[in-house]
This record gives sequence, C-alpha cells and structure tokens, in this order.
Amino acid sequence: MNKISIGCVGLGGRGMGLLRDCLLPRGDVIIAGLCDMYEDRCDAAKQMVKQAGHPGPAVTDDYRKLLDMPGLDALMVTSAWESHIEIACAAMRAGKYVAVEVGGAYSIDDCWRLVRTHEETGAQCMLLENCCYGRNELMIQNMARQGVFGEIVHCQGGYHHNLRKQIAYGLENRHYRYRNYLSRNCENYPTHELGPIAQLLMINRGNRMLMLNSIASKASGMRAFIRGEREEGGGNGGSAGGSAGDLNFAQGDVVTTIIKCAGGETIALTLDTTLPRAYSRGYQVHGTKGMFMEDNMSIFIDKKDNEYDFEWHKRWGNVEEYRQQYEHPVWQEYLRGDIKGGHEGIDWLVISDFIDAVKASAAVPINVYDMAAWMSISCLSEDSIAMGGAPVPIPDFTNGKWIGGYA
Amino acid sequence: MNKISIGCVGLGGRGMGLLRDCLLPRGDVIIAGLCDMYEDRCDAAKQMVKQAGHPGPAVTDDYRKLLDMPGLDALMVTSAWESHIEIACAAMRAGKYVAVEVGGAYSIDDCWRLVRTHEETGAQCMLLENCCYGRNELMIQNMARQGVFGEIVHCQGGYHHNLRKQIAYGLENRHYRYRNYLSRNCENYPTHELGPIAQLLMINRGNRMLMLNSIASKASGMRAFIRGEREEGGGNGGSAGGSAGDLNFAQGDVVTTIIKCAGGETIALTLDTTLPRAYSRGYQVHGTKGMFMEDNMSIFIDKKDNEYDFEWHKRWGNVEEYRQQYEHPVWQEYLRGDIKGGHEGIDWLVISDFIDAVKASAAVPINVYDMAAWMSISCLSEDSIAMGGAPVPIPDFTNGKWIGGYA
Repeated sequence: MNKISIGCVGLGGRGMGLLRDCLLPRGDVIIAGLCDMYEDRCDAAKQMVKQAGHPGPAVTDDYRKLLDMPGLDALMVTSAWESHIEIACAAMRAGKYVAVEVGGAYSIDDCWRLVRTHEETGAQCMLLENCCYGRNELMIQNMARQGVFGEIVHCQGGYHHNLRKQIAYGLENRHYRYRNYLSRNCENYPTHELGPIAQLLMINRGNRMLMLNSIASKASGMRAFIRGEREEGGGNGGSAGGSAGDLNFAQGDVVTTIIKCAGGETIALTLDTTLPRAYSRGYQVHGTKGMFMEDNMSIFIDKKDNEYDFEWHKRWGNVEEYRQQYEHPVWQEYLRGDIKGGHEGIDWLVISDFIDAVKASAAVPINVYDMAAWMSISCLSEDSIAMGGAPVPIPDFTNGKWIGGYA
Repeated sequence: MNKISIGCVGLGGRGMGLLRDCLLPRGDVIIAGLCDMYEDRCDAAKQMVKQAGHPGPAVTDDYRKLLDMPGLDALMVTSAWESHIEIACAAMRAGKYVAVEVGGAYSIDDCWRLVRTHEETGAQCMLLENCCYGRNELMIQNMARQGVFGEIVHCQGGYHHNLRKQIAYGLENRHYRYRNYLSRNCENYPTHELGPIAQLLMINRGNRMLMLNSIASKASGMRAFIRGEREEGGGNGGSAGGSAGDLNFAQGDVVTTIIKCAGGETIALTLDTTLPRAYSRGYQVHGTKGMFMEDNMSIFIDKKDNEYDFEWHKRWGNVEEYRQQYEHPVWQEYLRGDIKGGHEGIDWLVISDFIDAVKASAAVPINVYDMAAWMSISCLSEDSIAMGGAPVPIPDFTNGKWIGGYA
C-alpha cells in the first residue's frame, strides 16, 4: 500500500494541527475526507488540504458519510471528547482503521463497547497518546526495562497545564472543555501521564490496574480567573472574561487519584488545569534501585548518588548524563533526521506508528484494551469523587488475557 | 522563672541530639532527670550532662519517677513512638509541661486521651514538630498569609527519606522503626510535612481535616536492600544485612494519602522511606494566584511568570528571589545570631518555643488539638489501607471549637 486514504473528523485546533504538522507533510497519505459540525472549520481545512496538493477532499458534517466512502482506509478522530468512542466504534464496524485523539471515557459501558466492537469486527483502533512517544518517557522506559531502577514500586504523573483561558472562553472558542468543566468533576484527562506509566508497568501485558480512588479539591481557579479578567476588562474576542454566565464550575481544581495495580505498584495521578502554573507531566518512577523525577529532571541511583542524600539539588538536571547510554531506539532513529511535527516531535511519532500499522495491515501499538483501561479512569474517578473518595474497581477489559502477558 | 528544670525520657539518637544541641547549650535549663530503659544510654547521657556542668541528674528506667520529682517543671519525651501519648498524659496529670517528639498515633482513642487529659488537667503538651520552623516552610506561610498565592486550593508534602539502613539494622540499633515497619502498614510519620501544611491551612483555627484515604504500594524496598547487603557481605556492627530474620515487611514502600478539608482544600501526603532517594519534604502549595514547589525550589506567580509556562526550568531555584521580601520574622530574628542546634536550626527554634512557654507559664504553640489531629493520620491511614483505600473520617478533636477560629 503506497498511499493510504484518510478521513479526518473534528477540525478544531487539534485536528487542524495534526493535519498541518503530521499528515499533509507526508508523502504516503491522501486526505480524502473532512468532517466538522461547523462550516467555517470545514472550509478552512479544505483550503489547507487543497493547497497541499491533495485532490479536493469530500466535506461533510456527518462522519458516517466519510465511512461510506469505499476507498477510505482510515479515520482520524479529533472531535469533542464525548464523541470519540461512538465514532471509533462506527469506524471499526465500517472496517476502517481508526486513530482517536486522547480524552477520558464517560461510562464503563462505553469502554466495553470499544473492546467488544474490536473483538467482533477484528478492526484496529489506536489511541493517539503522543506522550507515550515523549523523549524522556521513552528513555525512562528503556532504563526501567534494563533494570536501572530495580523493581518498580510507585509511579506518579499529572496533567499540570494552565488551561484557564481556553476554558473561560470556551463558548467563544466552541471548545468542549468549557461544558465539561462546568458539569463534571473527575480526572478528565488521564492518559498523557497514565499512558507512559501503563506501558512502563506492563499494564495489560502481565499486569493490570485493580482499583482507584479519587478526591477533588474545591473549584476556585476558574471563578477567580474569570472575575479577574472581567475586572481588568481584558478579553479574547468576546466580552471581557468570556460569555460564561455561571461561575459555579463543577470541576475541582486539583484531582488526586491513586491507582493500585495487580503487581502491587501504586500510581498517583494529578489533574491540575485551572490554577496558574507552568506545564508539566510530573512524571516520577520509584524503584528498589533508583528513581526519576521530571519536575527537577533528576535521576537518583542507589550506591551512585547516596552522597547527595541531603544535597539533592546538586543532582537536579542530571538526566542528560544518561542520554547517550539510554536514549530509546525510537528517538535515536528519529533524531537522525529533523524533528518534525507538533509538540516536539511526539505528534509525528504517534501518527507515524498509526500510518505504518495501516500500511502493513498490522495491529496498532496502543490498542482498544489500552484505550479502554486508560480512558476508564475518567468515569471511575468521577464515581469515586461522587462517593466521597470511595475505592472503585477498574474492570479487566482483557478478561484475563493480561495474565498471559499480552492483550 | 530564670532556670527551668527538665527531665528527658528516651535517650536514643534523637534524645541525645536534642540534649546536646538544643538543651545543654542553653543557660536557662537544668537537666534534672534522665530516663531510658537501657543502662548504657543512661550512662552516656549522664556523663554528657555532667560534663556540661549540670549538677548530677537523677537517672531512672521508669519515667514516672521523674514525674515524682517535686522541682521538675517539664518533661521532654523522645522515646519510642508507641510510648509518646502514654508518657505525655502521665506528665500532664503530674502537672508538668511536656514536649513530645514527633510520630504517629496507634489509635484514635489515644488521640482523644491526649485531648481529654489536657482539658481535665489544664496542663500544656507540645508536639516538637521542628519542620513547622523550617525556613522555607515559614517563608511560604508568610507569603500565603499575605495573599501571594491567592486562595489556597491544594497542598502536598511527603516524608521522603531513605531510612533503609536504620530499619534493616533496627535490632542492632534498638530502633523502634524496625518493629513498626515489620508489623504495620500506614502513613507512619505524617507530621513533618503535615504540620506546616496544617498551619498554612489554619487547621483547628477556622478549618479542619474531614476525611482521608490511603493506598500503599507493595513492600519491596527493605527486602531488596537487606538481600543486597547480605550479598555484599556489608554490615553495620552486626551480621551482614542485620539480624532481621523475616524479610516480609508489612510497611508498603510508598503510601499515598489524600486528605479533604472543611474549606474544600485537598492535601496529598506521601511516605517514602524504604527506597533509594535523596531527602525531601516534597512541599507544594497551590493557589488561585500562584504556587510553590520544594522539589525544584520554584515559585510561580500568575501574571508574572506566565511566559515560562513551557519553560518552567528557567524559574527553578527562584525561591531566593523572594527571600528578602518574605523571610518570616522568626527567621529574620534568628538569622541575626548564629544558626544554633540541629537540623539547620529548626530543632533550636522548636525547643526554644517550648522553653519560652514553660518560663512564661503560657500556652504552647503546637497544642494537643494539633497533635491529636496530625498524629491521627497514622492510625486512620492504617484503617484505610486495611480496608482497600476506603475513605475514613477524621475526628474533630476540638468538638467544634475550630469553627470559632481557635482551639
């Protein structure tokens, strides 16, 4: 298969970014169809695609029409969170490869639907978790596989990203985060940090996540932000502070979730998107022989670094010392060319893995079992928070196949 | 009162350190009595005290004999964790001031006993939480009180301290941690991080901790450490790897605890003492206007630092920029002299506050309500872990007095 034919559903910021940075620059992809519920977004995308030399793509506001296109090989889903699983399942039923942008699930039944649709159709569905391709994440995974950290006992991660502006002006920007933050209280975006951790801990490949509990702080960040914008008279195209009327956001500012795994490991996740701060995925790996912490970019190895027990700051930033020996093969190869695509290359890498699978008619590397397990954290954390932090079981979406080592 | 007369119970490492660094150098204290269950410890302490010029202190293996001494003003308790509350209550019943080294509680009833004994006797009991006097902790508290971080929403802290050697050789060292780690699984040492956070969040003074849940990782660190010591043939006076026979430690390596407060704030605590790593108290404060993180020593302020949203490392270490404006008055005054006492001065400061209260017949700054609330986290986390992470209520040891703003 020399060139594959792709349709794109959802042409907001993320969809346009992936089109521009990761699909249109490729020689092995034809953008055959575009879909969005907003006409202006379709127009802008069509213009961009045509300018890149693709023969006029079909345009529709109904993704099912793309699935009816006989020559279409694959669908890329970058629409609102709420629509991901529905569209993914429809694509699998139509026999298409489907790549789905990240987000969390709204019900466990939807996660099962994803798994069952794959099992019934044999079609492949991949979660586009770009952070699984992060340079540091992959190097740390490489070190862990080689035993540098010993037996892994605990991991941490977070989605620490100040999104106040995007949320506050969500009506103006037609962004799904606004309505989600207004209505839900949960770990709404777990996979950026959980994906790499799950791969490190061999979740669904010899290990599984057993249970979690979640507690949310109060929701003060958005109200303070919007009031501040209004006082200052600032704005973002719309009225100062956005047109959000109700400042009673349901979403707690900081949600802490603890997951226990069958192997005895714990995973601590933090959602932290409505307070002022710098971006971080807060990655930490703790094992019997050493640890890694993203937030000061340090690696601490037993018997090597113990003299720094009370002078840790002298080891901050030492991750670079490990780069030459432990750079992951994916990144070794990638760095031989230029960094391409968005988000420092990770978008390019995740999209490339998807396209390679489509071209080879092969299994995707982040499959429906991963997707169901990772996305389920959102609705399970919602349950736990609603029940005052009660422990909630995490389903085994592999039905025991994880024990054999592979799902 | 020019000189106060103090008895010391528990003459292991901590007791001897406080004697040497914080009591004997003072001119306003007479060490009148010494107590330990081991004769050699009593002998060593007596010799040190006599060399410092104090008239021969009474020595006993029964702390009640110290309490019978008519001229004794105060008791300092640095014995094993399990004995703290019993001895503190006996001291209050004897009408003495009592200062108690930190540790966690073993039952909620014991916490109530502490509170009720104070209420019945009117005697003062202070928890010697030296970390409440940390230079950074106090500066951050000062900044928070002045509104720099806006409304506080979430705090984090941890006791990250590689104690594997102390625990492994616990039989040789006669250290209580060994038996505790062998038998219990809980947040066994919460107060170093929780104390400063509780003060920041005005716990018992307008706020209170409502509930928690705790999840523990597997216990792999001690087994790996002891096996490593034995393989290497290393030792610490005793046999290689210590004489610990049973390597099935109950204590999980990493315990994560989430606390929810009446004010809507969350507190995430981590116990992390049996894996290789550098020391940290992992302090974090997150508010609607800014944040602080100990593990990269950074302060991030809204509208000032937003250009660093994706270059956070450029702000790491910037805490020093705030020192001149926000140094806490306690540390401003302290730094005019020399740093005295152990642990970079914080031992000196906490002991000084206790002695000042005794001399003035005044209330202690960290009282039985603080002590009960902070220490209760240990046995409550034990309950939660045992029940699979179930949420557990935290008693209101003030019986509503926190609402009025002071207990």
